[in-house]
Amino acid sequence: MATIDAVDFFYLSMPQVLDIGDGSQDALLVRVRAGEFEGWGECEAAPLVSIASLVCPMSHSACKPVQASVLGQRIDSVEDIRRIGHAVRAASLDLLQADHTLSGIDIALWDLLGRRYQQPVWQLLGYTQSCAKTPYASVLFGDSPAETLAKATQIRAKGFIAAKFGWGPFGTTNLADDSAQLLAAREGLGAEGILLVDAGTVWNTDLSAARQRLAILKAVNATWLEEPFVSGALAEYRALSQESGSVRMAGGEGCHNFHMAQHMIDHAGLGYVQIDAGRIGGISIAKDVADYAAAKGVTYVNHTFTSNLALSASLQPFAGLAEHVICEYPTELKSLATDMTINHITPDQNGQIAAPNAPGLGIDIDTRGIQRYLIDTEIKVGGKMLYKTPEL
Amino acid sequence: MATIDAVDFFYLSMPQVLDIGDGSQDALLVRVRAGEFEGWGECEAAPLVSIASLVCPMSHSACKPVQASVLGQRIDSVEDIRRIGHAVRAASLDLLQADHTLSGIDIALWDLLGRRYQQPVWQLLGYTQSCAKTPYASVLFGDSPAETLAKATQIRAKGFIAAKFGWGPFGTTNLADDSAQLLAAREGLGAEGILLVDAGTVWNTDLSAARQRLAILKAVNATWLEEPFVSGALAEYRALSQESGSVRMAGGEGCHNFHMAQHMIDHAGLGYVQIDAGRIGGISIAKDVADYAAAKGVTYVNHTFTSNLALSASLQPFAGLAEHVICEYPTELKSLATDMTINHITPDQNGQIAAPNAPGLGIDIDTRGIQRYLIDTEIKVGGKMLYKTPEL
Repeated sequence: MATIDAVDFFYLSMPQVLDIGDGSQDALLVRVRAGEFEGWGECEAAPLVSIASLVCPMSHSACKPVQASVLGQRIDSVEDIRRIGHAVRAASLDLLQADHTLSGIDIALWDLLGRRYQQPVWQLLGYTQSCAKTPYASVLFGDSPAETLAKATQIRAKGFIAAKFGWGPFGTTNLADDSAQLLAAREGLGAEGILLVDAGTVWNTDLSAARQRLAILKAVNATWLEEPFVSGALAEYRALSQESGSVRMAGGEGCHNFHMAQHMIDHAGLGYVQIDAGRIGGISIAKDVADYAAAKGVTYVNHTFTSNLALSASLQPFAGLAEHVICEYPTELKSLATDMTINHITPDQNGQIAAPNAPGLGIDIDTRGIQRYLIDTEIKVGGKMLYKTPEL
Repeated sequence: MATIDAVDFFYLSMPQVLDIGDGSQDALLVRVRAGEFEGWGECEAAPLVSIASLVCPMSHSACKPVQASVLGQRIDSVEDIRRIGHAVRAASLDLLQADHTLSGIDIALWDLLGRRYQQPVWQLLGYTQSCAKTPYASVLFGDSPAETLAKATQIRAKGFIAAKFGWGPFGTTNLADDSAQLLAAREGLGAEGILLVDAGTVWNTDLSAARQRLAILKAVNATWLEEPFVSGALAEYRALSQESGSVRMAGGEGCHNFHMAQHMIDHAGLGYVQIDAGRIGGISIAKDVADYAAAKGVTYVNHTFTSNLALSASLQPFAGLAEHVICEYPTELKSLATDMTINHITPDQNGQIAAPNAPGLGIDIDTRGIQRYLIDTEIKVGGKMLYKTPEL
């Protein structure tokens, strides 16, 4: 029997964070210890804010710091992980950031149990195999069509058959510019490549702006259009999906709980639901969404734009779903995200990847290698030090 | 022409915060200054976390600190407030806490413009009058039915014709206990009183647990059952609403953006949508929800469990909706929430309240009186002091 002794958060960052849509520029690494057992996880985005929500003083009975529902808890089985998740959501109901914070802890708890029982997380989740997935190289659009063409050509040369282009200038100027970008991506990728397009919520809720791009998206045979709108714009998603033909709607990375993903699956006309285990509440909730998506005929896809620890965590929830084949694979990671782990998930000779067949998440943290990215952080409230970067 | 020079957050707290469902035990007070103009607002819950999201380092282009989209912005018109809100939501898309943080800033901006142009906020919102509302005394259930009876009797003696009981033991034990509580509340309030019941999400998504309480809720003639489930449980809300007869569903305080409230109005079978301006993104988004609710035949109600500054902010969005009469009025405030403001919103001789007919929010902050509640806070990242409690 083990109880959780420590939940340690480590704020890591590149020396310089650029104003671009690249989520690998910083990280919040999570270490959970229970007696002799240890597990690692990662929360997506805004490390300082999640640290604050871990340790903040209680506001009232439904607004407690996340650690209040985790420290001292028993952790012997997957049911314990579920119980802890419920406790956090209830006791931190009015603490908005809590879902992101819980995500990294939940991931670390799965890793901890997997290492303890010498089983891969996907096996603890009830899957009997880790199916091969087709990774799509996930990159930003170039600043110009020529740059996008070069990126797409490189991706193809590296052996990827699928690529996703997103953010950058796309959707910010006019239809002609966007068309040039899409044609360049298709040209570089070749006629047979799987082309995915990520609008990064650029049209917010503007259905007509998104609608204008449908013809060119169909012309370049895009497999999906991702996040034309913010996650809550269910009616706009659905309306667009009814006109988009073979170009399917993809979205869901903004979901920070099961219900939001459920609403998108039920009401947004999605072909693909994209879930980030580092945001939605961890592997536990991501698995719930994968089950729900599979039952509703929507394809589950991971959302990952950070380290290979996060990639493994995001692959586990649908590792055993053989028909849900495509997966996000970031290929422009900053050195922080690469250096964070000793081992990496790389495509096999068929160009496919899979959740590791190894205990826990199967990814080892390079605690020495990341020392140089560690950002000393202190939070003091009412004269009391609530947080100080722990020993790594 | 004015530009925003300073956004100052002040963490206030009672010396001791109790583990009860009382949101008035701490506060995050917001002061915005633009040249000679000043306005005040308040964010609901978890002060430290919202402070962190105001000042945190950028993670990437869609995860910037809230202040990045506010400081230096022009603030001359209500369109400027809208523009700033859009900017925060786009630039802090992946920063979950941002909606709560923006809320206090948005409220302060409305106050600032109202004071500058010598108009009440409700007038800036386009209303021609501040309609009288029927306040319901909002209190926690007693620990025993006898205590609840005493509370209800007191409320009636104070002249309130409506009362809401919530949280405490309700829903946590069994039907017999809950029935005794409800009968006590009705007895104390008298047959004519408006009785409202707040389950505080105690049943999460458990439809059958909620269903068991319908008979007694009908028997005591409850006007609404609030938050039987978490905000995302749209299907469960709708199912319960179809069996609840005269007891209408109420919910929405958990909504932190327009879309969540829209989904509840569209899909949850609500009779009443309850919006906290300090959470949903401020007065701007709350007004959008009020418009949408009115168009859909759902009654808008404020959610307020903190100071009279927050109360005024939460009354503004539906101040001019004459048919949306009932409003939340916390009557068990801790001294912090009372002492925060020099003036207070109190019932008139008819027992009714209204958004103040005065510039801005019409509420003055007692900057001297709250010094004793001020919690010194420091956040240091990478050797740099990102936040230190400013001068009040």
